[in-house]
Amino acid sequence: MTMQSEHVVVQEVGLRDGLQIIPHTVDTDIKRRWIDASYAAGLRHMEVASFVPPKLMPQMADAQQVVAHALGLPGLTVTALVPNARGGERALASGVHRIAAPISVSEAHSLANVRKTRYDMVDEFRRIRELCDQGASATRPKLIAGLSTVFGCTYQGKVAQDDVLDIVRRVIDAGCDAITLADTTGYATPQQVSDVFEAVRTLAPNMSLIGHFHDTRGMGLANTVMALQQGVREFDACLAGLGGCPHAPGASGNVATEDLVFMLHSMGFSTGIDLEALLASRSIVEEALPEEPLYGFIARAGLPKNYVGATL
Amino acid sequence: MTMQSEHVVVQEVGLRDGLQIIPHTVDTDIKRRWIDASYAAGLRHMEVASFVPPKLMPQMADAQQVVAHALGLPGLTVTALVPNARGGERALASGVHRIAAPISVSEAHSLANVRKTRYDMVDEFRRIRELCDQGASATRPKLIAGLSTVFGCTYQGKVAQDDVLDIVRRVIDAGCDAITLADTTGYATPQQVSDVFEAVRTLAPNMSLIGHFHDTRGMGLANTVMALQQGVREFDACLAGLGGCPHAPGASGNVATEDLVFMLHSMGFSTGIDLEALLASRSIVEEALPEEPLYGFIARAGLPKNYVGATL
Repeated sequence: MTMQSEHVVVQEVGLRDGLQIIPHTVDTDIKRRWIDASYAAGLRHMEVASFVPPKLMPQMADAQQVVAHALGLPGLTVTALVPNARGGERALASGVHRIAAPISVSEAHSLANVRKTRYDMVDEFRRIRELCDQGASATRPKLIAGLSTVFGCTYQGKVAQDDVLDIVRRVIDAGCDAITLADTTGYATPQQVSDVFEAVRTLAPNMSLIGHFHDTRGMGLANTVMALQQGVREFDACLAGLGGCPHAPGASGNVATEDLVFMLHSMGFSTGIDLEALLASRSIVEEALPEEPLYGFIARAGLPKNYVGATL
Repeated sequence: MTMQSEHVVVQEVGLRDGLQIIPHTVDTDIKRRWIDASYAAGLRHMEVASFVPPKLMPQMADAQQVVAHALGLPGLTVTALVPNARGGERALASGVHRIAAPISVSEAHSLANVRKTRYDMVDEFRRIRELCDQGASATRPKLIAGLSTVFGCTYQGKVAQDDVLDIVRRVIDAGCDAITLADTTGYATPQQVSDVFEAVRTLAPNMSLIGHFHDTRGMGLANTVMALQQGVREFDACLAGLGGCPHAPGASGNVATEDLVFMLHSMGFSTGIDLEALLASRSIVEEALPEEPLYGFIARAGLPKNYVGATL
């Protein structure tokens, strides 16, 4: 695996996946500063908000303002999560570049989380696709199928690979532009990641695949290595490893963006990100979320002596 | 990488690498109980002590008693660390099955740590080999060259791969039975691990190689995956991730044995270890070291729902 100088897209999803489970509503101004600091550190992909009903999730009530701010930064690809057609309308009106629409591969998780079956969510995905296609093609956002609980489910346990492939077929048929395979629950393990990404790549060789790993059981970076070996070149991550599961106290959340960038640079991949600037931007999260535990190995241990891969 | 049903040796090194930097001397009786609990959980390889001068390291003053206890457990391969020929004599007298003799690949680390050059340490290794060969062949211990700072050094930074291969050639010439490539400093990264193990394997295709990774920068399991891909089938680890570096407060130490076993089982490797019994044995470490932070993702997050790989 010698892939020196290849580029890997790192998408910061802390403002969405990181904040969505935190009850304390973060000021819009802090969100803007977080986006600015990430951008200054070189991040060019961010998922910044969810277009969900503000009453259900006050944290995301400012989605439109946050997206508007992010859209002002040249060259930044701005993504928002959209759970249904109504959210899709708001997202389209905001001018966001990419819409990520979630679909649980686990039926049990889908019913518990959104009270809809998986296939209902595929239908919803189709409606979002239709909404996107109504606009002018120049401003049409890309539509990502965000497949969750791909690698296991806290309700039903194992998730069959056939179920993953079934949903992949359906979202391709519905017209997705990219597919995220997300380990929502932190159940994924390295060989499984390799097998599932290989199966999906075999089924859809030309589809853009995105990896989204939680580090609940410490497998996040090992899983990332396996996905890299399967040719995946875009990953979601959260600054300071935000996104912990409320059902696993003390377990860290998403792979920490800083740790992912450190590993990618060490392997010769370029990301365009200045790791030291990224580490410094943790202070904004500390200020925004004084009561939340922050994770990340590089922040605790520091960079190795004479380390030369801070910016790649 | 489909290697289902292959066996991987997991060696518990917590009693040596884990305890050696902890100032609080652990009672011999607790060490015995720790060994017994590890053995009951299925561990069949343990590095249980260092034969170093008791005045320098009171923690290891009971090395002989600890080894004697371990040798009483049928089928357990008992290893001790030995830094020089004098320690080698004590180790041989103890009847230990394997002797691990450390040699820093980094000259700066060797001088700072043992006030000897690398080549002086190779000469010392040769003397230990000669001592081993004086005994009857039936009771002759295996001699492991424990190469430290293979992947980077807190004193000199980068460690050249040519330096690694130079020391590998010399310890093979000196008659080692196996070689551990140790990331003493937590500097190793996945592509580097792959490259270094591949280079060593190419140089010495028939030599047994052992991986020893610290998780200081969160790369421990990703590095393990890469070493597995290079055919490595023995790894050191510490229960509860003991072995933190005194120069990196808050940074975890060795890869946690529990997390390693969880990952190996998830990938289809057998270890002979009962993961739930191993997790339960953490209580002995908690009792022995009430002031030390314990690490390990599986212990915090728990096993996945309907998990079937607890024993493999």
